Amino acid sequence: MTTATVNTGIEEAARAHQRSLTKPHGSLGRLEDIACWFASRQGKLLPEALRPHITVFAGDHGVCEEGISAFPSVVTGEMVKNFVRGGAAINVLARQCAATLSVVDVGVLSDLSAVNGVTHKKVKPGTANLLHEAAMSPAECTAAINIGRAEAKTAIAAGANLMIAGDMGIGNTTASASIICRLTASPAEEVVGFGTGIDKTGRSLKVDVVTAALQRISDKPDEQTLQELGGLEIAAMAGFYLQAAESGVPVLIDGFIASAAALAAQVIEPSITDWILASHVSHENGHALALKALGSSALIDFRMRLGEGSGAALVVPLLQSAIALHNEMATFASAGVTDKDG
Amino acid sequence: MTTATVNTGIEEAARAHQRSLTKPHGSLGRLEDIACWFASRQGKLLPEALRPHITVFAGDHGVCEEGISAFPSVVTGEMVKNFVRGGAAINVLARQCAATLSVVDVGVLSDLSAVNGVTHKKVKPGTANLLHEAAMSPAECTAAINIGRAEAKTAIAAGANLMIAGDMGIGNTTASASIICRLTASPAEEVVGFGTGIDKTGRSLKVDVVTAALQRISDKPDEQTLQELGGLEIAAMAGFYLQAAESGVPVLIDGFIASAAALAAQVIEPSITDWILASHVSHENGHALALKALGSSALIDFRMRLGEGSGAALVVPLLQSAIALHNEMATFASAGVTDKDG
Repeated sequence: MTTATVNTGIEEAARAHQRSLTKPHGSLGRLEDIACWFASRQGKLLPEALRPHITVFAGDHGVCEEGISAFPSVVTGEMVKNFVRGGAAINVLARQCAATLSVVDVGVLSDLSAVNGVTHKKVKPGTANLLHEAAMSPAECTAAINIGRAEAKTAIAAGANLMIAGDMGIGNTTASASIICRLTASPAEEVVGFGTGIDKTGRSLKVDVVTAALQRISDKPDEQTLQELGGLEIAAMAGFYLQAAESGVPVLIDGFIASAAALAAQVIEPSITDWILASHVSHENGHALALKALGSSALIDFRMRLGEGSGAALVVPLLQSAIALHNEMATFASAGVTDKDG
Repeated sequence: MTTATVNTGIEEAARAHQRSLTKPHGSLGRLEDIACWFASRQGKLLPEALRPHITVFAGDHGVCEEGISAFPSVVTGEMVKNFVRGGAAINVLARQCAATLSVVDVGVLSDLSAVNGVTHKKVKPGTANLLHEAAMSPAECTAAINIGRAEAKTAIAAGANLMIAGDMGIGNTTASASIICRLTASPAEEVVGFGTGIDKTGRSLKVDVVTAALQRISDKPDEQTLQELGGLEIAAMAGFYLQAAESGVPVLIDGFIASAAALAAQVIEPSITDWILASHVSHENGHALALKALGSSALIDFRMRLGEGSGAALVVPLLQSAIALHNEMATFASAGVTDKDG
């Protein structure tokens, strides 16, 4: 399969429509670009308001045994319980932007089978340690990707027209940093950050782990990056993005982990970038590099580094406003306002 | 009068509350700062959701006879009619963020007395030409300031707890650039921009006009800046900010014009900056300089240059989300999540 085709004719018509609205041409800056982007992706001169859906994919990481995270792996499962009870940041932000929200266990170490409200799709309880071996087998990686695809299909069938994937996985900044280093050909020193709050010594260890993992897979093709480095939740996010792009539904990417997943999806299908919009630039080192490789430019820089889809959910109202301005403003002609060039 | 006092004790308690929430400490970045800022301004550990009010102040500028704007002065009155019919950008954005909106004619050249929905407070039909003489008399300037104060009082009495002033006035980037140059001691070349869309020749003329106006008032004290340079709508905005700060109600400033008004208000009452939050950084040159002088840091950079309060209205949902996260997230203790430092 391949991604859907963008309607460039509608994009031009949307640009012309923007020039007719009662404001100096270009004075709404990026809001004009956003409205025209959605017009061309929806294939509608006046795009519909956004109906966002967020899926948080959760999984654990074998590399945690190297001591690269400030929090223990048990927190991944504890946070999944927090999500289904509605107490996490992403729950609040989903309510604020009227998004539907689902939570998928694609590889949490803890046994969550008795927890209601979780979509139970555990491939295995955490990845293998990427420092020493492939995080997933090829079959496990494919299974995780397909779980993400199925989630996207379900949400789109239910009416979602903006897709956000969030992540929960202690240790996943190490996996993501490794993926970003490999797929942007950047050294670990430029990409590895402080994650959930390790100190300088912890970060130095993390740089060493990422460097060694990259060395371990240096003779393998890019296509094996995701399977080798993980995690299960990152593979599911990549599948979620691939399905959205194939279905012709825009994706709003979150931060560091989401961008690693998008880079992994880009290896599978390069044209996925046509359907991707960046939301924020994370405080985590190297996120800007990942966005550049995706050809996307962040809308805000709030020094966020939480994941869960939080940065993406936060900016949804900005996108809604861009569309509302495009659809609801009067034109120079209709309002009887003198146009500079009229 | 002076500005209200900020509750620093509540600010510290709000910081402690943030550290108890189920997220790595500091991982919500600026959202945490915003929530604590509102907590201390409202004097409430859990601040109330924002009830924004926007007043658009409209006035014309005698300096337009120098040919410094891409649009003719008649557009000011035409846009006021657009505001009361609901077709302008600020109308759409006010609806998006559930703000109340009022429109005040403080000095429009056109006769708008028959237009319903406008608050009619015309001091005079446009300022004098700031290139050659004082834009306003001392009495006219005071009258305009007091109109802004009265507007703020009315909105606060009606329940507003976030105050946004918007501007409409062909030529007002010239007045604002002059004010910003004078009050930040910056040369015109660094501050003057392209306004609503003049070309390079037009901008060069605008730089000359601003430089000459600054020369004209070079021996006058800072306190006369507003009266000398105008405009009537900028003076009203300054009064609006002064009243909000005296009443202890936060101000969200918009772009270039709003920041010139805030600088003028700062001359009258330096502590007004305690009550000011910046929204966006305008595409107009010199706005960043003005924000720096106000001690404020913009939340977004969308290359906007529209005025009307549009940049401020746009970011209101980001502030609401910051407050909702602060108020609604579970704590490590309540959610049974293992804290790194717990």
